[in-house]
Amino acid sequence: MSEFFKAAAECSIWKDEAGHLIDKARKEGICLAWDRLEKQTPQCNVCDMGLSCAKCVMGPCRIIPGLDRDKGVCGAGADLTVARNFGRFVAGGSAAHSDHGRDLVEVLHEVGSGEAPGYSIRDEAKLRRIAAEVGVDAEGEAPAVAKRLAERLGQDYSSFGPGLAFLSRVPKARRELWDRLEITPRGIDREPVEMLHRTHMGVDCDPVSLCLHAARVSLADGWGGSMSATEISDIIFGTPAPVKTRVNLGAIKKDMVNILVHGHSPVVSEMILLAAADPANVKAAKDKGASGINVAGLCCTGNELLMRRGVPLAGNHMMTELTIMTGAVEAIVADYQCIMPSLTDVAACFHTKFITTSEKGHFPGAERFHFTPKNARELAGKAVAIAVEAFGRRDQARVDIPCEPVDMLSGFSNEAILGAVGGTPGPLVDAIKAGSLRGAVGIVGCNNPKLQQDHHHVTMAKELIKKDILVLVTGCATGAMGKAGLLMPEAAELAGPGLKGLCLALGIPPVLHVGSCVDNSRIIHLCAVLADAVGVDIDMLPVAASAPEWYSEKAAAIGLYAVASGITTHLGLPPMILGSPTVTGLAVDGLKKAVGAAFIVEPDPFKAAAALDAHIASKRAGLGLPAGKEGSDADAA
Amino acid sequence: MSEFFKAAAECSIWKDEAGHLIDKARKEGICLAWDRLEKQTPQCNVCDMGLSCAKCVMGPCRIIPGLDRDKGVCGAGADLTVARNFGRFVAGGSAAHSDHGRDLVEVLHEVGSGEAPGYSIRDEAKLRRIAAEVGVDAEGEAPAVAKRLAERLGQDYSSFGPGLAFLSRVPKARRELWDRLEITPRGIDREPVEMLHRTHMGVDCDPVSLCLHAARVSLADGWGGSMSATEISDIIFGTPAPVKTRVNLGAIKKDMVNILVHGHSPVVSEMILLAAADPANVKAAKDKGASGINVAGLCCTGNELLMRRGVPLAGNHMMTELTIMTGAVEAIVADYQCIMPSLTDVAACFHTKFITTSEKGHFPGAERFHFTPKNARELAGKAVAIAVEAFGRRDQARVDIPCEPVDMLSGFSNEAILGAVGGTPGPLVDAIKAGSLRGAVGIVGCNNPKLQQDHHHVTMAKELIKKDILVLVTGCATGAMGKAGLLMPEAAELAGPGLKGLCLALGIPPVLHVGSCVDNSRIIHLCAVLADAVGVDIDMLPVAASAPEWYSEKAAAIGLYAVASGITTHLGLPPMILGSPTVTGLAVDGLKKAVGAAFIVEPDPFKAAAALDAHIASKRAGLGLPAGKEGSDADAA
Repeated sequence: MSEFFKAAAECSIWKDEAGHLIDKARKEGICLAWDRLEKQTPQCNVCDMGLSCAKCVMGPCRIIPGLDRDKGVCGAGADLTVARNFGRFVAGGSAAHSDHGRDLVEVLHEVGSGEAPGYSIRDEAKLRRIAAEVGVDAEGEAPAVAKRLAERLGQDYSSFGPGLAFLSRVPKARRELWDRLEITPRGIDREPVEMLHRTHMGVDCDPVSLCLHAARVSLADGWGGSMSATEISDIIFGTPAPVKTRVNLGAIKKDMVNILVHGHSPVVSEMILLAAADPANVKAAKDKGASGINVAGLCCTGNELLMRRGVPLAGNHMMTELTIMTGAVEAIVADYQCIMPSLTDVAACFHTKFITTSEKGHFPGAERFHFTPKNARELAGKAVAIAVEAFGRRDQARVDIPCEPVDMLSGFSNEAILGAVGGTPGPLVDAIKAGSLRGAVGIVGCNNPKLQQDHHHVTMAKELIKKDILVLVTGCATGAMGKAGLLMPEAAELAGPGLKGLCLALGIPPVLHVGSCVDNSRIIHLCAVLADAVGVDIDMLPVAASAPEWYSEKAAAIGLYAVASGITTHLGLPPMILGSPTVTGLAVDGLKKAVGAAFIVEPDPFKAAAALDAHIASKRAGLGLPAGKEGSDADAA
Repeated sequence: MSEFFKAAAECSIWKDEAGHLIDKARKEGICLAWDRLEKQTPQCNVCDMGLSCAKCVMGPCRIIPGLDRDKGVCGAGADLTVARNFGRFVAGGSAAHSDHGRDLVEVLHEVGSGEAPGYSIRDEAKLRRIAAEVGVDAEGEAPAVAKRLAERLGQDYSSFGPGLAFLSRVPKARRELWDRLEITPRGIDREPVEMLHRTHMGVDCDPVSLCLHAARVSLADGWGGSMSATEISDIIFGTPAPVKTRVNLGAIKKDMVNILVHGHSPVVSEMILLAAADPANVKAAKDKGASGINVAGLCCTGNELLMRRGVPLAGNHMMTELTIMTGAVEAIVADYQCIMPSLTDVAACFHTKFITTSEKGHFPGAERFHFTPKNARELAGKAVAIAVEAFGRRDQARVDIPCEPVDMLSGFSNEAILGAVGGTPGPLVDAIKAGSLRGAVGIVGCNNPKLQQDHHHVTMAKELIKKDILVLVTGCATGAMGKAGLLMPEAAELAGPGLKGLCLALGIPPVLHVGSCVDNSRIIHLCAVLADAVGVDIDMLPVAASAPEWYSEKAAAIGLYAVASGITTHLGLPPMILGSPTVTGLAVDGLKKAVGAAFIVEPDPFKAAAALDAHIASKRAGLGLPAGKEGSDADAA
């Protein structure tokens, strides 16, 4: 084992850095998520089972069959109550991604209209390629093409449009299946709105029908809002290509003005990055005694900048409060999603300024900017100035950055992955057919304070790559993999012989960082490309997904669109559905018959990895492929 | 007091009919909403205060400050948790109305395209008037105009359209206020979707900002989805004009095949009405021994047919289970909203067939049809045939229809109201200025088993008309008013002298039935017309709204769009916001500063009526108008 890998993967940096700062917070009496979870424990079992309903004021109702409360006032039983709650849960997640996508459509339109100073078209070739793909005139001046493409993708948000543009990417057999099940999404906004309608008292009272509509809602996200967010971000900010960067709290620099960008959108954070590099601002920082301005990422805004600019990642979901505990963060610039409301409280214990940038996301106590494509460049300068000013108030005696950053590679867009193997899916398909690459698993999603942070992500990845299964990683799983050293080519040492050979030949790690959480659209797109190349539907591929430490509604939407697209998906924690035998049965079994994939709920990462390995083995067998060299479970199957 | 009024209003028919059948159900061991409410009592106080959150799997959390649970795992406190829940509650209601409106847009488009056999344009003048109003070419063949109008109103559902068509009806000062507050709705679907996004963990963490967005969501309903539903329904099915009909369980006929239409849409129920009149079906019914086929209404589908066709109303929300208890209902044909899931259970205790017609609303155990404009005429025939067949299995020994129906007038569209006074708002404005008509209150909304059914509606109406305040009624309040005799001109006897004189002069009741719950759009539109005629903003008018017995998310959306439009609104039960001082303060006070109107929460109908009377008195004073003859509270004000 190389020295690098020993240093990165074996010293449990994640445990050291988090544990160290959690201790510091407790000593200083600062309350963090783990403390709040403890105070919230025991959590309400009725809510946790999905059996509470507060959707009308005949209620609230609690469905507890054993206590003669088997029905709510309206007559809804356990199955219906759970299905209604799950439907809205998925709608919440889908709406979040899709509303993010809407912002990108708007920015693209303003770029095309010349009304977005500071923004441009960084990947004109992709602009024209996507325009042509969705049937938009791809010729002429780039801004005009951008405007036309924005108008076309904007129609995906309409209820009476031509249909979702990227559904053309879905393999034909899958499209026909969705049509038969009546789950083909009709509009990105329409499906979550219809879910709200269906779950109003006295509309859809069939749990199966609600679950199928939940699938439709999620597909509007995966093949709609999220996919638009990804593709347009690439067009405006550049399509990611492999880039070397670093990860962990060491991305925060003791001698610099530190600005952390948090949330999910690249729109504002890209402007912050530009403003931080502005010589006038750097000079101002130096005048304050800093050696410069350092921008580092958090959460998925971090992933966006990591993928495209190699901006170091300071932390994932459960690290966000802890970054402030370093005492060295001048400003957190936040857009939206997964930004704990507690951050303003923790920031108030330090000199840290908390700056919000979206009109959709206000935080009491924050500096409130309302960024638009028109004013973004100007406001980004102001935000950076606030951070520089805050540096003057930093108490260096309280600064505590417990570790040095670990190297990692990022930037594995589909274009980069396919580019690495020659531009077509053929070589990947050949490797899969030969069994040197037994399959692929996307490990995605969040952290959750209920689980030992990052442990499940890392354990599963190690178990899978051992068995020649390539891992693709997005979202907050990225920080975990990066800190464990798995995102460097050196980690090929931990892979099975087939995957190791592939990694060494291509100079890539066995775990590829493919983006933020909207970028899970890259994974389903790649699966569709592979399925078409093999000539099968997606559910026949030796692939799977896993969200070992998920927490959010978005993760549930992602999991469901993966399953509805034919990708069996592991969840490390159950969604709040266990109160319904019908909904639970559908999730772990019934969906298999309907869409050829289902959920596996398994908290133990070793068992979960084994289950995914067995799943991949069975899919290989289904395609008549050899089991592969390391697939011991596969051989047994 | 006339004999009619004594018979109708004083004998408490509502109590007799409901009480009688509730007793019958208990004897037969059939569980009804009141029993389920009893079993659910005590209800969860944390949910009831709006302090539970199950929007991510770090939770579920309960915010109970006294028990050291002042923050959820994410850091959300009481204010944020309540605001998030309230935001989604309003989004649920707005989405329901708006998704109903979407159906009408689709039907209008198909009518225009010649693809909706059985449907036509019944009010071509209104079609052309509305088309011209919203800037659509109103000339040429009616189907072509219909198609163009559908396309324009369909754009209201888009995120990137020209803006909501009917915002042009809003008084200028109000429009400018909404723009300043950034609550002008941008798209009917966009606003509830953005609410789902904002209430996802870590997006909008400011309770005030969430409440303002809730107002925007509700305005997208009131001036968007609901208004389209109303106007298009009038175009397709005819604009209501005064019509005499009858109400209560006596609308169910012992010797006939009884079909009850339930839900909210006229689209299917109008076809059922046609099919029930088909001589072949009537003959089939007679062959089974019935004297014919009787269609009666429930809930708001009932209101739609009541307004336009004078179809008798068998019952409102809390009467729906009880209609089945008469033993004389062959079929309930249900579309969507407020259809208790328990109805299939109750129906299963009788020969009653439960038929669903919308792909959005399935019920386990129901006959499931999927009506579309194309197949509606054909499927309506099948549904009626099922009812006729069921008549053969009716057990006449179990039939128990406890009362004779009461006469009522319906059909008071804005066109009818303004038509009655000569076609312009001038005479109404003059009556208001003179003080013979002191003001107007819309009494709207549901029943709730927590309250003595219908009592609050009727008591408030009687108290208000006494004080020369005209009452407009929609939705389930209609059944209450009708059964109490208040919807007949004879009820003018109960009104103050000014209102009585007006009623006698025009031959109208002091309580006017103006429609279903989407038709609350008629009320805000009429207020806008009056405001423009007076030359003031809506919040300066001597008007108010009241939902004394509300239960649903839709009612919350309606209440909020009324308030955001400047109409102070009484609620007989509080929404689940009492856990937040900030949100509660906004609702009952803060909104007054922001939008010139707020909520009054008051369970006692006498006190509530007095509060609305005082409100109207203060608005009259604000306009420099005389207090009016009967306004004793007003004189004091």
